Amino acid sequence: MQQKKCIVRFEPSGLAIEVQRGAVLLEAAQKAGIYLSSICGGDGYCGKCKVVMESGHFQAKPTTLLTPAETRDNIVLACQTQVLSDMIVTVPQYHGLQTSQILTDVDARRFGELAGEIQAGVFELDPLVRKIYVEMSPPTVKDNTADHERLYVAVRKHADAPIMQTGFRILQRLSGLLVESGYKVTVTIGRRGGTTEVMDVEPGRRDDRNFAVAVDLGTTTVVAHLVDLVTSRTVDVEATYNSQIHFGEDYIRRIIYAEQNDAFDQMQNAVVGDVNNLIATIAARRRIDLQDITTVICAGNTAMLHFLLNLDPTRIRREPYIASASFVPPIRAAEAGIHINKRGLLYCLPGVAAYVGSDIVAGILATRMYTRKKVCLFVDIGTNGEVALGNRDWIVCASSSAGPAFEGSGVRHGMRAGAGAIEKLSIAADGTIDFKTIGDKPPAGICGSGLLDTLAELFANGIVDRTGRFTETAGRGAQAGPWQGRFGEGPDGRQFRLAGGNGREIAITQADINNLVRSKAGVFAAAQVLMNSTQTARGDIDTIYVAGGFGNFMNLRQAVAIGMLPDVEPSRLKYVGNTSIAGAKTVLMSRRAMVAAEKIASSMTYIDLMSHPGYMDEFVKACFIPHTDLSLFPSAGKCQD
Amino acid sequence: MQQKKCIVRFEPSGLAIEVQRGAVLLEAAQKAGIYLSSICGGDGYCGKCKVVMESGHFQAKPTTLLTPAETRDNIVLACQTQVLSDMIVTVPQYHGLQTSQILTDVDARRFGELAGEIQAGVFELDPLVRKIYVEMSPPTVKDNTADHERLYVAVRKHADAPIMQTGFRILQRLSGLLVESGYKVTVTIGRRGGTTEVMDVEPGRRDDRNFAVAVDLGTTTVVAHLVDLVTSRTVDVEATYNSQIHFGEDYIRRIIYAEQNDAFDQMQNAVVGDVNNLIATIAARRRIDLQDITTVICAGNTAMLHFLLNLDPTRIRREPYIASASFVPPIRAAEAGIHINKRGLLYCLPGVAAYVGSDIVAGILATRMYTRKKVCLFVDIGTNGEVALGNRDWIVCASSSAGPAFEGSGVRHGMRAGAGAIEKLSIAADGTIDFKTIGDKPPAGICGSGLLDTLAELFANGIVDRTGRFTETAGRGAQAGPWQGRFGEGPDGRQFRLAGGNGREIAITQADINNLVRSKAGVFAAAQVLMNSTQTARGDIDTIYVAGGFGNFMNLRQAVAIGMLPDVEPSRLKYVGNTSIAGAKTVLMSRRAMVAAEKIASSMTYIDLMSHPGYMDEFVKACFIPHTDLSLFPSAGKCQD
Repeated sequence: MQQKKCIVRFEPSGLAIEVQRGAVLLEAAQKAGIYLSSICGGDGYCGKCKVVMESGHFQAKPTTLLTPAETRDNIVLACQTQVLSDMIVTVPQYHGLQTSQILTDVDARRFGELAGEIQAGVFELDPLVRKIYVEMSPPTVKDNTADHERLYVAVRKHADAPIMQTGFRILQRLSGLLVESGYKVTVTIGRRGGTTEVMDVEPGRRDDRNFAVAVDLGTTTVVAHLVDLVTSRTVDVEATYNSQIHFGEDYIRRIIYAEQNDAFDQMQNAVVGDVNNLIATIAARRRIDLQDITTVICAGNTAMLHFLLNLDPTRIRREPYIASASFVPPIRAAEAGIHINKRGLLYCLPGVAAYVGSDIVAGILATRMYTRKKVCLFVDIGTNGEVALGNRDWIVCASSSAGPAFEGSGVRHGMRAGAGAIEKLSIAADGTIDFKTIGDKPPAGICGSGLLDTLAELFANGIVDRTGRFTETAGRGAQAGPWQGRFGEGPDGRQFRLAGGNGREIAITQADINNLVRSKAGVFAAAQVLMNSTQTARGDIDTIYVAGGFGNFMNLRQAVAIGMLPDVEPSRLKYVGNTSIAGAKTVLMSRRAMVAAEKIASSMTYIDLMSHPGYMDEFVKACFIPHTDLSLFPSAGKCQD
Repeated sequence: MQQKKCIVRFEPSGLAIEVQRGAVLLEAAQKAGIYLSSICGGDGYCGKCKVVMESGHFQAKPTTLLTPAETRDNIVLACQTQVLSDMIVTVPQYHGLQTSQILTDVDARRFGELAGEIQAGVFELDPLVRKIYVEMSPPTVKDNTADHERLYVAVRKHADAPIMQTGFRILQRLSGLLVESGYKVTVTIGRRGGTTEVMDVEPGRRDDRNFAVAVDLGTTTVVAHLVDLVTSRTVDVEATYNSQIHFGEDYIRRIIYAEQNDAFDQMQNAVVGDVNNLIATIAARRRIDLQDITTVICAGNTAMLHFLLNLDPTRIRREPYIASASFVPPIRAAEAGIHINKRGLLYCLPGVAAYVGSDIVAGILATRMYTRKKVCLFVDIGTNGEVALGNRDWIVCASSSAGPAFEGSGVRHGMRAGAGAIEKLSIAADGTIDFKTIGDKPPAGICGSGLLDTLAELFANGIVDRTGRFTETAGRGAQAGPWQGRFGEGPDGRQFRLAGGNGREIAITQADINNLVRSKAGVFAAAQVLMNSTQTARGDIDTIYVAGGFGNFMNLRQAVAIGMLPDVEPSRLKYVGNTSIAGAKTVLMSRRAMVAAEKIASSMTYIDLMSHPGYMDEFVKACFIPHTDLSLFPSAGKCQD
């Protein structure tokens, strides 16, 4: 007799889940809260969701994404495998996330704080939501102003609030509260558009408890900073992987998944749950009452903010690539399901276009390039690569759709900047490879800054040529160089071992290098198109700001060496870390920054690269290391043989 | 065996209700939806809730408010009577309301339309909520503005809306709606404070369907006018008695009842139910979809608006007599339980103080005395008597707490201006009495204008003297005058028959006259205090506006003759009817009128008469007909013997 229900246990976590017979293994893993890499969202063409079948019956669709050796070792693609009985499955370590859904403090800081405070002192402290303690004279026959207007008069002594509004439920209990408190109350006011809203009235003095949370809503990670609005001090930070990652690693995949499965609510729940978890974690750790958190300010790409607010994201991926909304005024956080003060506000920074979101606007705000006389270039290398160029008079921007290679996707041993990631690497002429991992753990993979180093060092040492191919002279044939022992054949073809051995080696493949080159070429071509369309020469660029979660050892000279960034003097290169959270935090501190962000977003000109006649040409030229046109890279001479 | 449940049947309506044995008969009547007059709210001291016990067992508390004859005829006070078995009770006709809860069309017009259109043409048509039809170009790769901002650009071509906000649920479905409609939609925008809110987006052209309702929320009657905001035409009117009347005839009684029984929700439900019934009745009659009614504008006294919004009204009746709120910005009608468009707005006109509400502000707006160079006096004679004096530079106001005698309360055969009410009356020297009733029905009682005529005619014919007492010479003693047959002794003592006979007579008693004199004295004294404190002489008054639901034959010369109003030339007297609804309707048509109303309310100075040193003196002096000081009434000479 066939079972109708099957229990699937995942090792090494031991987590088990009961599913219907015939269920897809990838979905079973998602249900169990097990993270499996999956870029295609379960369509069976990315080959990332490999697991080892330890016991049990299953049925797997044929695939070309597994080598015969893998099939022999009982490796299957979870998305192509149906569960037919109770089973035990081992999740290989490279999926990496299932044991540490919430990053450690150190990692949170790594993701979040790198450029967190760069705005300090620029804007005055004037948050969207304020608490004001007021003492009023109780009414008399001679001074018979109604309670509601009495409160307004008192508030206006402390705040510029010509147009005020009071939450109806607050108005209904206002009189009793004023009488009981002896007309001494703390008023929480929020600014929405031109109106100052009385969001809460509490008896007595409570104006020392007012907190806000800045959130960077990334495709891959979600970072939260909790700020004390009285002292303007960052109290704590926390980060997590975006739970939507179960539904696809990039947001286009997630939109497709949501459309095909009518899973928009599920998408929203996933990311809102992440935000709520981050806030709740910090609040519990710092013993802060959620009612005292009055604002959440979010920055993120357009798709992520659409998911957060459950706005229709489907037209982001279809011509003419339109957002439902780029500007959303402050709404009640509760309306989006975020658990803070029940009348607390949620404000998402404005975006520019479907592919240039508010994370980029936040970056422009955080770097203050919108105030500079000279032209600056801003490059955000995350799951996508967005580029902006401009000064205080104009800003143009574009999205390179470079792909997330530098976040580790599409790279066999690529990983995010977490524990064990190689974040720094150098290759000596004698064949020695030095590297450093995050947390000094045994190497588990390579993160962005490590990949940058790897590509630059492979090229500098002649192991790959200008086209990005492993050179014949390196390691092959009669003239065996110092790298000979590092070359080998892996499931993806020829590969170069960087670390480890005995089956736990970390290697880079030809396919990996091709992906990295395409990715860097996308970024460079985007910058070049922006420069061409604004007649900006390389020498006109005052500063290049590079944002992203690369790790602490980001070496921007290597980014120039491989031709990802224009060849400017090293002193003009600035790694600014997570500017999305930095910009959100700036807006959290000051309404003037909010006005500035809206002005930035509405004045930025978006250039669509896919329909741009010059882009493909620039891209092809940039698919060399550093570039086809070496005159663009005068400093490259010293790296060339 | 005793019954635990008893059935009480009320005649002549035949309505029956099951109650617990021991229940109070007045409460049983309220439950059954039977209206019984009750000024004291069931405390047993007004003596209004008389009913005839036809059969059944009961227990009644002793009372001095019933004559021995009444007790013999099985008359009881419903509030003092407990139900001990099934019973049949007859409700005397004078309670009057149970058979016609909803006034007829004619009566609605009588209450509502008298001064309904006096504002026509003064303010431009610019309502709080507008519908705008917009056609947008669909987005392209070159024109990739997000849907939300595309809509804003389109709306701003038709409306001055620098700060806009969109309902979150509307935003969430906006994109789909724009695509389906081919980017041709009707946008409903509402103005709240400085913000223009997108309240609704509908596919296609629907801008020809936008309605609003003006409501006069009186203590006694609730009147609604439905206006087509496209044509600015009044489509229909409807009126009803305020259902709260079950809980007390004046609002102070109702506040006490609500406090004692924690019945604030019940109070709100009663009046919101009335408003909803009026709106639903008109909407059904005119085949208007409730979704197309986008605004409700209310005027009323401070207590009624507190009940409507369920704000705490209890401090209105306690020193220092404070409102919870005088200014309430537009809220969602749904928040107060009013059934129109689900995002439709409810705006209550602002009031001045606990005893000078937005009905008076509406009156100042409707009469436009706030724009006049010369001083005008405004008198609203409703359940209370409010008085305002001023011009375009200043306005002072007061509430006379005169009592509702001219609305028929405290007068044995007094009634409201409904079918059968004597609204006009004259007494000839030969003893003939001519009168006219509303609807030309058999006389059922006397309404305000009839009472004014009665008092003036009794005085003019020497039947009552300057102190308001029946004169000895009239009808008594040897020199029997033409009125002899009209005098008699009733349950309240000496009385004068005005109409009818054979047990269905309509008479006025000494107690009635005393009440009317006190009531008129209150109004006059209030006006005099305002004049004194602003050094306004009688001759300075350009116009006296009298508002209230008196009936169509209001003779203001009689109001001067009895000393209710200052003695000005007849041409300076203007009866303006229901200015509360007229003002509400003006605000409904134009936001500028709303701004004007707020300016009026905030600039009016309230004078509390109870604590005013001169008021009691003025009141005592005014308790004569027309006044102690005849120099104030030069025209009175011709009426005096």
